[in-house]
Amino acid sequence: MEALDYLAEERRKAEFDVEEMKIAWAGSRQAYEISDRVSRLVASDPVFRKDNRTMLSRKDLFKDTLKKAAHAWKRIIELRLSEEEASKLRFFVDQPVFTDLHWGMFIPAIKGSGTEEQKAKWLPLAYKMQIIGCYAQTELGHGSNVQGLETTATFDPHTDEFVIHSPTLTSSKWWPGGLGKVSTHAVVYARLITDGQDHGVHGFIVQLRSLDDHLPLPGITVGDIGMKFGSGAYNSMDNGVLRFDHVRIPRDQMLMGVSQVTREGKFMQSDVPRQLVYGTMVYVRQKIVADASCALSRAVCIATRYSAVRRQFGSHNGGPETQVIDYKTQQNRLFPLLASAYAFRFVGEWLKWLYTDVTQRLQANDFSTLPEVHACTAGLKSITTSATADAIEECRKLCGGHGYLSSSGLPELYAVYIPACTYEGDNVVLLLQVGRFLMKTVSQLGSGKKPVGTIAYMGRAEHLLQCRCEVQRAEDWLKPQVIVEAFEARAARMAVACSKNINKFPKQEDGFAELSADLAEAAVAHCQLIVVSKFIEKLQQDIPGKGVKRQLEILCSVYALSLLHKHLGDFVASGCITPEQGALANEQLRLLYSQVRPNAIALVDAFNYTDHYLGSILGRYDGNVYPKLYEEAWKDPLNETVVPDGYHDYIRPILKQHIRVARL
Amino acid sequence: MEALDYLAEERRKAEFDVEEMKIAWAGSRQAYEISDRVSRLVASDPVFRKDNRTMLSRKDLFKDTLKKAAHAWKRIIELRLSEEEASKLRFFVDQPVFTDLHWGMFIPAIKGSGTEEQKAKWLPLAYKMQIIGCYAQTELGHGSNVQGLETTATFDPHTDEFVIHSPTLTSSKWWPGGLGKVSTHAVVYARLITDGQDHGVHGFIVQLRSLDDHLPLPGITVGDIGMKFGSGAYNSMDNGVLRFDHVRIPRDQMLMGVSQVTREGKFMQSDVPRQLVYGTMVYVRQKIVADASCALSRAVCIATRYSAVRRQFGSHNGGPETQVIDYKTQQNRLFPLLASAYAFRFVGEWLKWLYTDVTQRLQANDFSTLPEVHACTAGLKSITTSATADAIEECRKLCGGHGYLSSSGLPELYAVYIPACTYEGDNVVLLLQVGRFLMKTVSQLGSGKKPVGTIAYMGRAEHLLQCRCEVQRAEDWLKPQVIVEAFEARAARMAVACSKNINKFPKQEDGFAELSADLAEAAVAHCQLIVVSKFIEKLQQDIPGKGVKRQLEILCSVYALSLLHKHLGDFVASGCITPEQGALANEQLRLLYSQVRPNAIALVDAFNYTDHYLGSILGRYDGNVYPKLYEEAWKDPLNETVVPDGYHDYIRPILKQHIRVARL
Repeated sequence: MEALDYLAEERRKAEFDVEEMKIAWAGSRQAYEISDRVSRLVASDPVFRKDNRTMLSRKDLFKDTLKKAAHAWKRIIELRLSEEEASKLRFFVDQPVFTDLHWGMFIPAIKGSGTEEQKAKWLPLAYKMQIIGCYAQTELGHGSNVQGLETTATFDPHTDEFVIHSPTLTSSKWWPGGLGKVSTHAVVYARLITDGQDHGVHGFIVQLRSLDDHLPLPGITVGDIGMKFGSGAYNSMDNGVLRFDHVRIPRDQMLMGVSQVTREGKFMQSDVPRQLVYGTMVYVRQKIVADASCALSRAVCIATRYSAVRRQFGSHNGGPETQVIDYKTQQNRLFPLLASAYAFRFVGEWLKWLYTDVTQRLQANDFSTLPEVHACTAGLKSITTSATADAIEECRKLCGGHGYLSSSGLPELYAVYIPACTYEGDNVVLLLQVGRFLMKTVSQLGSGKKPVGTIAYMGRAEHLLQCRCEVQRAEDWLKPQVIVEAFEARAARMAVACSKNINKFPKQEDGFAELSADLAEAAVAHCQLIVVSKFIEKLQQDIPGKGVKRQLEILCSVYALSLLHKHLGDFVASGCITPEQGALANEQLRLLYSQVRPNAIALVDAFNYTDHYLGSILGRYDGNVYPKLYEEAWKDPLNETVVPDGYHDYIRPILKQHIRVARL
Repeated sequence: MEALDYLAEERRKAEFDVEEMKIAWAGSRQAYEISDRVSRLVASDPVFRKDNRTMLSRKDLFKDTLKKAAHAWKRIIELRLSEEEASKLRFFVDQPVFTDLHWGMFIPAIKGSGTEEQKAKWLPLAYKMQIIGCYAQTELGHGSNVQGLETTATFDPHTDEFVIHSPTLTSSKWWPGGLGKVSTHAVVYARLITDGQDHGVHGFIVQLRSLDDHLPLPGITVGDIGMKFGSGAYNSMDNGVLRFDHVRIPRDQMLMGVSQVTREGKFMQSDVPRQLVYGTMVYVRQKIVADASCALSRAVCIATRYSAVRRQFGSHNGGPETQVIDYKTQQNRLFPLLASAYAFRFVGEWLKWLYTDVTQRLQANDFSTLPEVHACTAGLKSITTSATADAIEECRKLCGGHGYLSSSGLPELYAVYIPACTYEGDNVVLLLQVGRFLMKTVSQLGSGKKPVGTIAYMGRAEHLLQCRCEVQRAEDWLKPQVIVEAFEARAARMAVACSKNINKFPKQEDGFAELSADLAEAAVAHCQLIVVSKFIEKLQQDIPGKGVKRQLEILCSVYALSLLHKHLGDFVASGCITPEQGALANEQLRLLYSQVRPNAIALVDAFNYTDHYLGSILGRYDGNVYPKLYEEAWKDPLNETVVPDGYHDYIRPILKQHIRVARL
């Protein structure tokens, strides 16, 4: 096998220690070792094969998914995997399935909102998977606006029960993963009504299906909502629809960690601060950002390797054509994405720290950082997932026509990734939340309230509104403080300008509404600054391994300067930099590309993805693309017969003129 | 049925004559009437149903496609449809199929490159579909670079035959639509070799399959290349792989319209100017731009209607929530796309005129406009298809989570559209061709050679490099000449700056290579100017119908000003406008959105799409979205049984703890 490495020459070019970079990417040696071991375990297990996934019919795909989930559970038990290892194993199986929601949403919902008694009753059942749960929040007519949900949970004091009901068509639960065909239970979000009074939306544990025969319980209508984007992809998941016709559950199945309903039907807010839920929110968003770096790095790995394999044009005297990775247009599109993968990885790592920090503060009843943390995590979720979705498609285009083949892995990667832009907060709605936070921060400047954390730079707004970028030569753009100040000045100036414009409106709410597009742009500027800053902070740490830090410095500059070029209008129009400085940034960027080029293959090798996980013929480690593409083609069901099904009915009659009933 | 129009209130708001706008969109009353009649014909025919398409397995989908193609042919004959009507019928069937290539590539290739004798022999067979053909150019290892093709056609003077052969794996023909399972013949592009000498790539008519039993002929290996992006979508097409093992064809099956090989094996260039092929190229690109406006308008129609149906947040006193189309962020994303649909429509219309003009010039041996026409059509193909691909995804996101459902129609529309960015010239490669043309134009300034057509503005470069935008108030941006001059100045300045930078390199080719990203950006600026100019020119014509012209003027301004905002860096950094003028443009844009808002539904109604063609529950004409989404869900194969296949094998053992072989 070793002899067959078409990319060996590329690998020899690397100017840094790839093994150490793998550890830097993974976050720690231990994390690296677990990932490495578990990913190989999955890759070597024939049950986890996924190369035929896009050819399966919906039913066959779903059955294959159930099989993999059962097998994964078996292996987790047999090998006595730790929680972290088990979660990695599910990750590398790489097929959306009901267990994602059981472990990722159902259990956390009970943990986060249940009382100690409720946890003691339900969690052991869930941990052993004696029940399987999902998270039933969104409805057919209600997504982003949770407070608009219509499902009702009406307390009946006569029987000490809640009556769960779907009063309208639009109140049908719609989208929850794992609901359609598998879950036996759900945490259902519904409007709590006691004695005719509406207390807003709360969570209830509701059994949906019999544990004996899996049939829906009386009053419950449940099914799958149908095909979604792409082949394979999220069609392995039974996203579901659910309607209740006066379904009764015992009172103690309302999640009462925060609010309670007494036996008498009295509604009581608990004295536990509601802010505690923010801990979970930071955790979930941290995970989404980490997932963004995974999806993005997979796409970049495929596009980078294939760009080194593929040759087009530029043949001299009959020699081989030029590797497409040597074209500046290719580098100009690809390398900023490679840099983004690393940037998102490190900002995700920082979010892990932030989660710990927030958790400790919450336990100490310190809620002071919450608004900033809320804005920062909302914004990072938004910009990293949007950028990743776009980047996967860009990587597909960078592979030319072959990227359009399912066997490139990129169509399915895209299809399976894009829901991240919508779930856990629509990306535009989130940006507007960040925008409002920025406006509040601006309005409080000079009030003595000092901005903290990622918004601390606004405390220096006076300086940032008038500072001048000192870049005179292209290499000045390599200085971290120059980059940071330019990004800070841009973010501060956009926020302040936006605030001024909003204040021109007689009613502030009208200003927010009218200028929401500007607000979203200011939010993007703020969030990009965070990513750039955290990348730079990472580089101030000790990073072992020959040349590793140097490569990361180059990527950090590529990330920042490519953003600067993309948003040149922001920087120049706000006077943060001059057009000439913008041109110098571009010049420096080109020089940086030349430095990335010899290291490109090693930089994607550092993600340490198995060919199984990558799932792409174009991205194969050994670069042996064309024979494998050819081989793969013959596996398509259409090639089972030489003459296609339908020839006699629909092709032959045309050729033999049996269709003609009249002269042309 | 009429009572059920949830969008009736929206339609009453329209301030213009929708019926007249339909004619403006279609191009003429006659074109409108044909489209209207044929689209209804297709919509009412049960064989052409497509609502279950994404659920079919590959084999079933392919068979369904063959059935539709045969039925379409039958209807075309029965109804004695004209060529234009027949083509419209295939268009509205809206399912990629082998006949697209038979009519769109195989026949034109013979028409364009065959001799009169060859046309007389082959075209009647093809017109009657007694043979079915495809266009076999690209190879596994060779896409954009046609001159790098490896398939050989070696003349054997002993037998007066060509020997067609695939010498390497990478020379396998790969991608041609209709090749995999259906075509009996192909125009094969191969290197012509006579007497050991390579004469470059030429076309040959090769029979692939027996007309008796459809089996591949001796020496021919042919099959389908497998699944592509998405479900449904292009998987209805048998894109194929083809290898030749010394397949012999008579000499007269080389397409000899331009070059010939004599009986003695002598290669002869004809005296027919090679430029004649450009006519076909203009025709094909004109069609691609027209298709872009169709795909884009479909997506915009779906997103606009659903944005009026969908409500989120903003409920006052328990009233209904706000229609999402009333949010400025939604308008800011959606209305520029609506404007682009019209802009692309009109530039496509102009390209039809250009095709006529070029054809007449070619016939008169006037090749003077060819370089400009080549650059202009290449660039328009590139920017309209790229913008359309992005726009379809943006429209999907504008529909929130439900846009991710196949029943929204948007996933399949995207999947089926995106190849347009790659075929007939990769979009980035095309931009670089435009860039080179711009550099040549700049270098010839002052040489007395006057730039013509779409590049004529460069003749005023001296003025454009120093002119100042005169905008002082937001409404100044409504003046067409102000817009045009700003776009001309931007394009001219970017081209000239690029040219200067390239000249700094000792070798010009190194400059082109290093600065190719800048070159591509200059090309985009040039092409956007063309679209803006042609829209403005359209508005100088007489356009009947109450309020029709007024609406188009608003859309034209929206198109231009949204581009200006998106590329603000170009305009400001090159000094074409000041940051303040950029802010005024943005202010004007917001005012324009308010003018588009009441007309939005009527503006998409003007596309006159049937619900069948639109293929989207979210985009239904009657706006009755939620009941239909609910109804549609139950049709998924997973819902055929209440308990899913696989329950007993894979779910029950988990729940019943039969998987546990060890303690957790």
